[in-house]
Amino acid sequence: MHVGERFVSAPGKAILHGEHAVVHGKVALAVSLNLRTYLRLQGTASGQICIHLPNIDTFRAWDVAALQPLVSDRKGGTSLDLELVERLRAFAGVAEGSTDSGNMAVLAFLYLYLSGFAGAQTLPSMSVRVWSELPTGAGLGSSAAYTVCLSAALLSARGTISSLLTQPQDTASWSEEELTLINKWAFQGEKIIHGNPSGVDNAVATWGGILRYHAGKITPLSRVPLLRILLTNTKVPRSTKLLVSGVKDKINKFPSIMVPVLESVDAVSRTCELTLREMATAGASAQQYDTLEELMDINQHHLSVMGVGHPALDTLCRLTLAHGLHSKLTGAGGGGCGITLLRPETAQRVAQEAVWELREAGFECWETSIGGPGVLLHCATSLPQGVLDVLTSH
Amino acid sequence: MHVGERFVSAPGKAILHGEHAVVHGKVALAVSLNLRTYLRLQGTASGQICIHLPNIDTFRAWDVAALQPLVSDRKGGTSLDLELVERLRAFAGVAEGSTDSGNMAVLAFLYLYLSGFAGAQTLPSMSVRVWSELPTGAGLGSSAAYTVCLSAALLSARGTISSLLTQPQDTASWSEEELTLINKWAFQGEKIIHGNPSGVDNAVATWGGILRYHAGKITPLSRVPLLRILLTNTKVPRSTKLLVSGVKDKINKFPSIMVPVLESVDAVSRTCELTLREMATAGASAQQYDTLEELMDINQHHLSVMGVGHPALDTLCRLTLAHGLHSKLTGAGGGGCGITLLRPETAQRVAQEAVWELREAGFECWETSIGGPGVLLHCATSLPQGVLDVLTSH
Repeated sequence: MHVGERFVSAPGKAILHGEHAVVHGKVALAVSLNLRTYLRLQGTASGQICIHLPNIDTFRAWDVAALQPLVSDRKGGTSLDLELVERLRAFAGVAEGSTDSGNMAVLAFLYLYLSGFAGAQTLPSMSVRVWSELPTGAGLGSSAAYTVCLSAALLSARGTISSLLTQPQDTASWSEEELTLINKWAFQGEKIIHGNPSGVDNAVATWGGILRYHAGKITPLSRVPLLRILLTNTKVPRSTKLLVSGVKDKINKFPSIMVPVLESVDAVSRTCELTLREMATAGASAQQYDTLEELMDINQHHLSVMGVGHPALDTLCRLTLAHGLHSKLTGAGGGGCGITLLRPETAQRVAQEAVWELREAGFECWETSIGGPGVLLHCATSLPQGVLDVLTSH
Repeated sequence: MHVGERFVSAPGKAILHGEHAVVHGKVALAVSLNLRTYLRLQGTASGQICIHLPNIDTFRAWDVAALQPLVSDRKGGTSLDLELVERLRAFAGVAEGSTDSGNMAVLAFLYLYLSGFAGAQTLPSMSVRVWSELPTGAGLGSSAAYTVCLSAALLSARGTISSLLTQPQDTASWSEEELTLINKWAFQGEKIIHGNPSGVDNAVATWGGILRYHAGKITPLSRVPLLRILLTNTKVPRSTKLLVSGVKDKINKFPSIMVPVLESVDAVSRTCELTLREMATAGASAQQYDTLEELMDINQHHLSVMGVGHPALDTLCRLTLAHGLHSKLTGAGGGGCGITLLRPETAQRVAQEAVWELREAGFECWETSIGGPGVLLHCATSLPQGVLDVLTSH
């Protein structure tokens, strides 16, 4: 079985509003972040299966023949085949309890490869290379972008979903049904990497755009605008677990103060959703951008009230506000990443100056967008040259 | 009638929690600010009545004989005698609609003098000198401290309230009944100066301590702790009226977001009140100071959400937090003043460094306290030397 070559990409994820409040039953808005993860899958005649993850210095290869005995008949797409995970853990020499990102990425790859080709007469040999614009472990859904790319590429290589790029199209997405399948498989990979993921990250990486997440239910918004943003990584390390429990402690200490704050955050998310729907259907106005900015300011203060602010995030807000730009943390807070909204009329020079100053302050900063497409199939010529170089280098 | 000499003082006012929210029916806590206004009333045989207000460059004198015809039989203590105000306006040459602080202070003085001595056979000649540690027009109740001093000194000169300083006491307060009278008269002076005051400022200047203000009702807390603070004046000018209407606009624009914020502020005030009561009755613990700090941080964010923050206030919060100290705006915001809580164990050196840095940043800054006594009668030797010098210079 020869599988040819394909390029796929999937976006990262940011939380626009509702981080932390979502844990307490409130609405959150998750958005695709157009810092993308790119994957090249290439069929080979080497009899080997190789995975190259240069971002995290992980390069592994195995003889397909050695993997063949691990194939199970059970398809791993709808629920996680824990026995297969155990067999793969032993096979790849990954200790129980390891959380090393390279090990986890390798396990997820082997699992999706083996379950994807379960039932195939012979396992195909192939080389898979992944490169991501996303920082790892920054709460930007880099693992979901990875598992969505893997899932799309492997399902397409197997022929379970289509692989057709109609000329002159240089990128293509999949049907709703195929996307649902990609997402389901990717979710199994996410479970291997994270244990108990919410499913939001892989849904965003699959569908792109903006998703509403409420009480465990994920609903894509049908039409959303593309918003220009700066994404800033303060590089201040934090523990999401500790931050989440800190918020819980604060709610317990001051229920009469904190419960209304969560309600207000919920209303911020809902107001933002409404505003984005209007922008997508009736065209964006300056007033709507004003509203988006106000909502970001309000929520940033609410998150500080919850105790997940950080001086580095205050610096981000202050530096960008000096350019008339509004920012908030995204995700767990306590450092980590923040987003800054750019308006359609924000001059490139202004955005660039803000980026320079943020880098000067010791942060990583990218000009990108949110609300863009989910997983995509590419022809090689449609890829940014730098990405193509990394994916095709030897 | 000769009236002798007396020294009185009254404190300024700060809002600890609930500014702006109080306009929307929520609880506010007003506290006495131990930056005091001092008054010396001295009976003279000059046949003149003189008022000296060096803080606002106002020095006026009139022949008592010229004032005599303006005396009305009506006592002006319980409601404002608008006719008398009009006659005094004409007498003192103050144009209708003037809001000049010197003119208003003179009008209030003449009004309280004339109504205080209404019914007296002859008006006494006297010199009144007032000097205040409070900045004027900074929302710190300087006019109420002034009218409370005037009211206490004039009522005491008239003999309506007592004037006894029992040795070795060097300061004394008045009975509850007498304080109620002082406050009522001072409120008339406040009406002349402000038109439609809430009555909170003069109540704080009269009773000191901490007052709860809710739906127009003013309730002094029976026992409160004295708290060390820094009071900072950012000197950023602002219009209280515009700020109040800005908050209203924001509530109208985002009711579902803002109504819970007001509820949360209400809960901050109530939680603070409870904590202060506990501190006063059971002794203050480090945990209670932690709570007071947390409440200040929370409310400062809420006030920013209401749109009454300012970069100068952010600077105040940032600079003090670098010393482990927590700050919030007090009063209208949008600039104006802020308070910084000092803990009992905060070293003098730390407080002093913070004061230096705040002054370096262009702010005025005082180390003082909140929750201290209201209006006091002093003997000359109990006054700070600098104050005595100003009040007795010629």
